[in-house]
This record gives sequence, C-alpha cells and structure tokens, in this order.
Amino acid sequence: MVQLLENPTTQQPNISTKSEKVLLDMFENVCQALEEIDGNKFTEQRWTKDEKGQWIEGENNNGITYIDKALRNGNVFEKVGINYVSMHGELPPGVTFQGADVVMLDPANATGNEKSTPFFATSTSVVINAHNPMVPTAHVNYRYFQLGDGTEPGSWWFGGGGDLTPIYLFEEDAVHFHQVHKEACDKHDLELYPQFKKSCDGYFYLPHRAECRGVGGIFFDYLQDRDAETLFSFVKTCSEAFIPAYMPIVEKRKDMEFTEQNKYWQRLRRGRYAEFILLHDRGVRFGLASGIVSTQSVLNCMPGEAFWNYNDQPEPDSKEAMLLEVVRNPREWV
Amino acid sequence: MVQLLENPTTQQPNISTKSEKVLLDMFENVCQALEEIDGNKFTEQRWTKDEKGQWIEGENNNGITYIDKALRNGNVFEKVGINYVSMHGELPPGVTFQGADVVMLDPANATGNEKSTPFFATSTSVVINAHNPMVPTAHVNYRYFQLGDGTEPGSWWFGGGGDLTPIYLFEEDAVHFHQVHKEACDKHDLELYPQFKKSCDGYFYLPHRAECRGVGGIFFDYLQDRDAETLFSFVKTCSEAFIPAYMPIVEKRKDMEFTEQNKYWQRLRRGRYAEFILLHDRGVRFGLASGIVSTQSVLNCMPGEAFWNYNDQPEPDSKEAMLLEVVRNPREWV
Repeated sequence: MVQLLENPTTQQPNISTKSEKVLLDMFENVCQALEEIDGNKFTEQRWTKDEKGQWIEGENNNGITYIDKALRNGNVFEKVGINYVSMHGELPPGVTFQGADVVMLDPANATGNEKSTPFFATSTSVVINAHNPMVPTAHVNYRYFQLGDGTEPGSWWFGGGGDLTPIYLFEEDAVHFHQVHKEACDKHDLELYPQFKKSCDGYFYLPHRAECRGVGGIFFDYLQDRDAETLFSFVKTCSEAFIPAYMPIVEKRKDMEFTEQNKYWQRLRRGRYAEFILLHDRGVRFGLASGIVSTQSVLNCMPGEAFWNYNDQPEPDSKEAMLLEVVRNPREWV
Repeated sequence: MVQLLENPTTQQPNISTKSEKVLLDMFENVCQALEEIDGNKFTEQRWTKDEKGQWIEGENNNGITYIDKALRNGNVFEKVGINYVSMHGELPPGVTFQGADVVMLDPANATGNEKSTPFFATSTSVVINAHNPMVPTAHVNYRYFQLGDGTEPGSWWFGGGGDLTPIYLFEEDAVHFHQVHKEACDKHDLELYPQFKKSCDGYFYLPHRAECRGVGGIFFDYLQDRDAETLFSFVKTCSEAFIPAYMPIVEKRKDMEFTEQNKYWQRLRRGRYAEFILLHDRGVRFGLASGIVSTQSVLNCMPGEAFWNYNDQPEPDSKEAMLLEVVRNPREWV
C-alpha cells in the first residue's frame, strides 16, 4: 500500500518530463498496434502556433509537440482518432481552475487573476471504432496538468482512464478489459480499481437515455492525493494496460460474421456515442469553448458514422436488448 | 405599421386557444404536404402523463395534446421529425424564467418561488432531411408560452422561425426561401424581416466551426413587445409561410442526379447539424435537462445519418467549397 499524503504540495521536478515521455510512448505504441492490425497507416497532422498565438498546421521549435493521427475506412477500423500534446502555455487573465474544471472568473471577483497563468499539459487520447459491429469501441486518455512550476498545493494533477463500449455484448470481453485494468490498479493499491470503476460508470452516463455509454473501465480526474512520483508510476502502469486490455478483443472479433441489421444497430449506438461527446464530455466542451487546442483535434474523437431514428427500441430478448440491459444496469465484471 | 407598446401587460384571453389551433393547423398541413410528396405516411406517437407525472405513450383526457410524427427512409425523405404539443403544466418550485430561458434558482435566493408556477405552452416544430443531397434540410418551429393566466407583464411570449440548410448551394432556393419569409414579415411591419433575419444568422451559428448552420431564414424569441393579438397575427402569417417557402424547393430538387461524393458531403454536413443540435440548440438542451417533454420528442430533430472525418476540407473552387464560403459569410438574399 502506498502512503496517503495529508497535504501533498511538493512534486518531483521531473514529473512533467517523465509524463510527456510515457504518454508519447503510449501514443506511439497504440498507433503501431493499430497499424499492424489494420494494414493501413495513420495520416498525421502536426499543429503549432503562429506569431499571433493561433493554431496553424505545421511545427516549429517553440516547445510544443502536438500531433493528431487519424485513420478512416481502414481494413479493420472505420475511424480512429489519436491525439498527443505536450505544451507550455498561458491561461488568459481571469481564467482559473476549480478542481480540474477550467472556469472564467467574474471580473468583479477576479482579484489576483489579472495576469496570465503559465501551465504545462501533456495528454494522449484515443478513440477506436471498428467496422465489425462485434468489435467494441474503446476510449483511453491519460493526462498530466501543472500550473506554474507545480510546487503550490493543488497545482498539479493526473487524470484519465480507459473504457469499453460494446455494440453487442460479449461478457468475456468486458471481463477481460476490466481484469487487465484491475490488475494494473492492484499493483499500486487495492482500493483504486473499485473507486475508479465506479467513477467510470458515473462519468460516462447519458441521463436523458438513462444509459451508461458502455460497460465502463476506469476513470479518475484531479488525482493529486499522493506524492507525484507514486501517482506517475500508477498512471504509467495504466497507460501500458490499454493495449493488452483491448487489442486481444479486436483480434478475436474483427473477422466475425455480421448482418446489415448488426450494422444498423452499430450506427444507432454510434449516435449515442456522439450524444455523449457533444452533450457531456468535459474535455470536448472545454476544448471547443476555449480554443486551447484546434477544433479538428477536439472532434477527432467523434464516430465515423452515426444514425438516429425515432423511438427505435430493440425486440425484447434480442441481442440488442441484452446490450441495453447492461448499459442500464452497470455490473461488477471482476 | 403596428403600434409598439411601451408596457404590454394585457393579452387577449383567447390567444392561447387561438395559438394552439393555428399551430395544430400548421402541424397537420406540413404533415399532409410531406406525405403527398413522399408517398409514405408518418408514424405517429402520442404521449401523456401517468399518475406520477411521468411521460408515457398513449393519450387520455387530461388536457394534454402531445403528438410526435416521424418518417424514416421514405421515397423522398430520409428522416423527418414533427412534434406538436399543447399543454398546461407546472414549473417545479425554484424553477423560473429569465427572458425565454428557464433557470433553476439557487435555493438561497429563491424567495417567492417556493410554489409551483402554472404554465401553458403550445408549439409545432419540424426538421426535414431528404435523401437527395440537392434538397436542403429545413427547420421550422413556432411556439406560444404563458405563465399563469398571462396577464402579468412579461408573462407570455411567442418564439420561432424557419431556416434553410443546403448541402449544395442553389442561390435561387435561398432567395426564394427568404423572399417568402420576408413577404410574410412585411405584411405586418417592414422592420421585422431585417431584424429576424439577422437574429437567425446569429443564433444558428457554430463558433467552433466558424460557420452558420445554413443560409438562415428568420428567428425570434421572447416576442412580447406588441399586443398579443398583433403578435399572434404575425406568427400565424409566418407559420403559413413555411409550406410555400420550402415545398417548391423540394419539388424542384428531389429528382436531380447525384453522386456518391455528393452523399458523402451530405452526411458530413449532417454531422454539423448534429453538432449544432447537441452543443447549442437551447430548446434541445433545456428539453433534455428538464424532462419537460420526452427524450424521444426532443431528439426527433436529429438527422438520420451523420458522418465525421478528421480535417475534411473540400477542394478549392469545388461546389462543396462554395457552400462553406456562404455559411462562413452570411449574405443578404433579398
């Protein structure tokens, strides 16, 4: 068991450097694993800032590494979006954090926030949609954020997680995905998996549908309750868990037979995924509102094809109804 | 020119009854016009409340008329959603209006709002998506809202408008749609069209894309600056303008030839439409958050099929680029 700190104010000065390295490794390893399965290469787009501070395509030597990779209509994958960023920047005056949420201060109450706040952020995020409706969609994101030099209390944190969104339920896939993530968590503290599994079910939830997005996984944000080295080590382990948690499922399902009805259901479920992203995803809503990254990057997580239909209910006792039952009643998988 | 009232507090007692009649006429006329063009009938779903106040499918004699109509994969139309509602209800304690926006009061400041507020609302809303990418998408909605008996200052208002979202730009279609709406406005006051045309461009805007949703039309909300009879008469004229503004365009475009590339572009533009609905549409966000109508009704306005792709830019000087140019730079059409 790791030690829980009462007042964790000091971080290792090299955490930011180590985090950007680990997240870049994850970015490259996930890209490579997906290209091997698919047989196609990702397109790559690098972004940088022009003299006015606007995002433009390209790169220069201004300390920003910002790469989007995308794959559309591959052999196995319908649409994959992967983003990596490592950047030093400045929050505009009057913009600050409350927990992990960025807020605009009312100018009347913004005393002490008249100047820009320097920050460092590094993040890798991935959303994978396959053609075959038997392959679940997966999402993974890990990130490290730091205000100033990260020495003030509450001025740095980790966030992230990985979750699985089946179109059709294969219980063994959900068990495997959770098992690998549980083992990653358990290496650090047996209390982490139950806590972050619950957070995941709570966060990836569509209240207007009374449905979870999928069968969950782990999710945490504003993680700073232990020393930075300990939490870095935990996040590193989690970031390495995604490939063994997900890729075997893709291999197992990608060549299964499916029908036009299965594709239709897949696209309806993609519609739900789009609803979550646009209505509820905090990172997306913040990203689009703030312009802190480009719109193309923020929406790289959108599904490829989505359908909507009025009041489209599956037949009772069908495979589609089984999926709805499980997203409406989250289970303990391990 | 109609008279502008300084302090319009009194409405005609029969405005609510006349409004629900006019909006039901519009609902039925639009349904009939679409069925005639398509050759298929709408499916119809009626909703009512159970003893616990939850929405259930069906109808009873509790003073609520609430009808959703939907058409999917018709001969001409890919997806049409039409909703009509006329209902007396109660806003829960602590919920009130600021302008046309419903707000939840902070309990600490909610003095005087300890009890439920009775309201009356009637509305017809329509979103029409055709198969042929040369047929523009259209949206129209008119509504009347009243708190209590509508005799308090600011306790009643009209809202609504109609707007056109081409996939490919035919300037003559945009001109026709605007011309018919301008003529409807001009019958009442020459100042209305310029004002509501501008409001439409401002409201149906996606800031993260720096694009208007389409070529606009008219839009107004919280309209109460003249006597109720005058405004009712204006809204009635507008509600009758939609069919002559839109149906001739459908007839003209529905049998035009198109390519797979045209369909692909159509689905990308449907993605933008989905983004607007889920990120920005006030009625949708309020509807989903409040539960004041059913989720199925709220999302009856979603497109049928939507695609997303990373950084998908049209070729310079292509027909697709022409459309982007016009949604990025709203024009005066008449």
